[in-house]
Amino acid sequence: MGGRGESESYRRLGVSASKDDVHRAVAALGPGLLDRAFCRVNPDVFHGDPDHCVVSHADGAGTKSILAYLAYRLTGEASAFRGIAQDAIVMNLDDLLCVGATSGFVVASIVNRHARRAGDPAILDALVAGTQAFASRMGEFGVRLAVGGGETADVGDVVRTVLVDAVLTTRMERARLIDNDIRPGLAIVALASGGPAARYEDDWNSGIGCNGLTAARHELLGPGVAGLYPEAADDLLEPDLVYRGPFHPTDRLPGTDRTVLDALLSPTRTFAPVVRALLEDARLPVRGLIHITGGGHAKCLRFGRGVRYVVDLGDDVPAVFGAIRSASGRSWMEMAKVFNLGWRMLVLCPPEHAAAVVGVARGFGVEARVAGATELSASGSNELALRVAREFFVLSA
Amino acid sequence: MGGRGESESYRRLGVSASKDDVHRAVAALGPGLLDRAFCRVNPDVFHGDPDHCVVSHADGAGTKSILAYLAYRLTGEASAFRGIAQDAIVMNLDDLLCVGATSGFVVASIVNRHARRAGDPAILDALVAGTQAFASRMGEFGVRLAVGGGETADVGDVVRTVLVDAVLTTRMERARLIDNDIRPGLAIVALASGGPAARYEDDWNSGIGCNGLTAARHELLGPGVAGLYPEAADDLLEPDLVYRGPFHPTDRLPGTDRTVLDALLSPTRTFAPVVRALLEDARLPVRGLIHITGGGHAKCLRFGRGVRYVVDLGDDVPAVFGAIRSASGRSWMEMAKVFNLGWRMLVLCPPEHAAAVVGVARGFGVEARVAGATELSASGSNELALRVAREFFVLSA
Repeated sequence: MGGRGESESYRRLGVSASKDDVHRAVAALGPGLLDRAFCRVNPDVFHGDPDHCVVSHADGAGTKSILAYLAYRLTGEASAFRGIAQDAIVMNLDDLLCVGATSGFVVASIVNRHARRAGDPAILDALVAGTQAFASRMGEFGVRLAVGGGETADVGDVVRTVLVDAVLTTRMERARLIDNDIRPGLAIVALASGGPAARYEDDWNSGIGCNGLTAARHELLGPGVAGLYPEAADDLLEPDLVYRGPFHPTDRLPGTDRTVLDALLSPTRTFAPVVRALLEDARLPVRGLIHITGGGHAKCLRFGRGVRYVVDLGDDVPAVFGAIRSASGRSWMEMAKVFNLGWRMLVLCPPEHAAAVVGVARGFGVEARVAGATELSASGSNELALRVAREFFVLSA
Repeated sequence: MGGRGESESYRRLGVSASKDDVHRAVAALGPGLLDRAFCRVNPDVFHGDPDHCVVSHADGAGTKSILAYLAYRLTGEASAFRGIAQDAIVMNLDDLLCVGATSGFVVASIVNRHARRAGDPAILDALVAGTQAFASRMGEFGVRLAVGGGETADVGDVVRTVLVDAVLTTRMERARLIDNDIRPGLAIVALASGGPAARYEDDWNSGIGCNGLTAARHELLGPGVAGLYPEAADDLLEPDLVYRGPFHPTDRLPGTDRTVLDALLSPTRTFAPVVRALLEDARLPVRGLIHITGGGHAKCLRFGRGVRYVVDLGDDVPAVFGAIRSASGRSWMEMAKVFNLGWRMLVLCPPEHAAAVVGVARGFGVEARVAGATELSASGSNELALRVAREFFVLSA
């Protein structure tokens, strides 16, 4: 039962990791076509074809945009916003992979900005260029994205700096849907959120992704940031919480040759080429996909019924998570409920196919490991038995 | 040439009415399938069918959400957020009408909030209920909307109160597109943005819509608001600009029996049932549709080539706009570049069909008038010759 409840330190930052209230409010919409799928799946509202469905997914870069704003203020360069554009897309794209949608998306982008602070045209140019470059690169790997619409709003009375969101929409055959009805007896393959550049990437990635950035910013970045850039923090936060970390943004992240700011700004890696190859080329029998985002590894508790997920993430955790843990004093269990800890996609398949899944991922230069299996839960509730960095704990639904 | 440049007072509020920089940045994406259509039209990225296209449109309620937040703080009631949900949808839906898309949309919603100030579950419930109620009502009038996805993000380091955005996406036959290639010789029928409830509405509407709300808030609402609710304003605004108007939110709006706050919160009226009936039922030869939003009536300058729009909006302007003008000291010309002034949709058609367009609109209880015509522009550039409230002026592209 150690997994219940939210991290108090996280809640004091004004962020709900579990989003219980959001899930309750959205439940009023009804379940969509599939009760427990990773994304809401809708009937074909475009044409009413019972063999097709429509999925439209919304998400954004969240407060990661503040880091790009800090980089912009520190260097005068807006280029970090290219990665923010990728973050906003991948937070949608990789959720959509989890229902089996692997290509043919239209992308709509929303930029809400404080025009005086973030109205430099170079910022918008970087966001547009980042969107185009990502879509173009994905196209080379068989994942078609049409950059289809967008809105930029000057809302200085609401937004302190800048926010970047996106919506991806697709229409697909219902027969291709993955319902994430996870059963006992499956292997769990974890795909690495960072490491050396994948075949479809240009640079090393810290693995941070796009979740837990409120905590990571305030716990890693320190003296000076709050004073120099008060617009980069909530005015209601108690002063002892604001940018209280040990690092200047340009300090080196221990164990790496990158700065803390660069590591935190690593664009969220997509697994789209890998999942497309698993489903379309190798036609492997993938039974479930779980994108580890808000709520961290506790996310898997939402899928299946009476399933115990037994997962070993290994002894080595990417440097950025080690630094956050050291700076914050959080336990690994608390860390696991917020961060991906280096593994941001779980692929569930029959055990005899696990090695093939690992092989496909590694073929793209994405590290993968057979991280565990699903079992029957003795308690009847979903449970996650997680081992990471030589610690072991159990989270339950 | 009187129409060039932006209102200085508007710019000081941190808002660009013309969005020149945005149009320039987005031009990097290329024109889409139709050079000058109202919304970007994309090839069929879902299925690659050359006879179909995909339109995905993003927009939001902008800073109008601050008014719902003020209502919530003043009364403890979150119900005003139902209208904000409608605002966010209609800002997309009515733009999409202008390319001829009248039904079969999937809606994705994005709520970015400061959890401590706007995390009351009643706010999210009101947004979800408002979205559902609007979609359901539209369905009764043949406009199908599937509420298909959403994201609620706690981003207190970026957002002071709450922001509500939406994306609407549809797939349609290319043959049904309206390209807005406006020519001389067309009649212009204006549809009223407010007035008594239309057949598909429940309440009177001030006509304010969802544009110019930054100006309207600061120029109408006054003493006390800035002091009581500092979170409702940009911290960089000069104090003489912030909530400097004559009215308390609960004061009566002159010429009406509503409060100023209620009038400003009137949900944006949709014209979807009217336009659907024009195109699908009456099959009238509509040559163009112009949704008067950001940039106000200057928006028409973007459509056609060498066209002079001659438009008479009549002598009577809805009370909310009269109050903004009185409080701000703006000219009607400046007002026309920000606000719809009571007429938020222009329908362009051959003159012999104008009376039929008016008839269809009135059949829905939506006031309409033959407001003018398109002519050949002597200058070769697009021009708008606008008469409103007994003043006359010319704006040029």
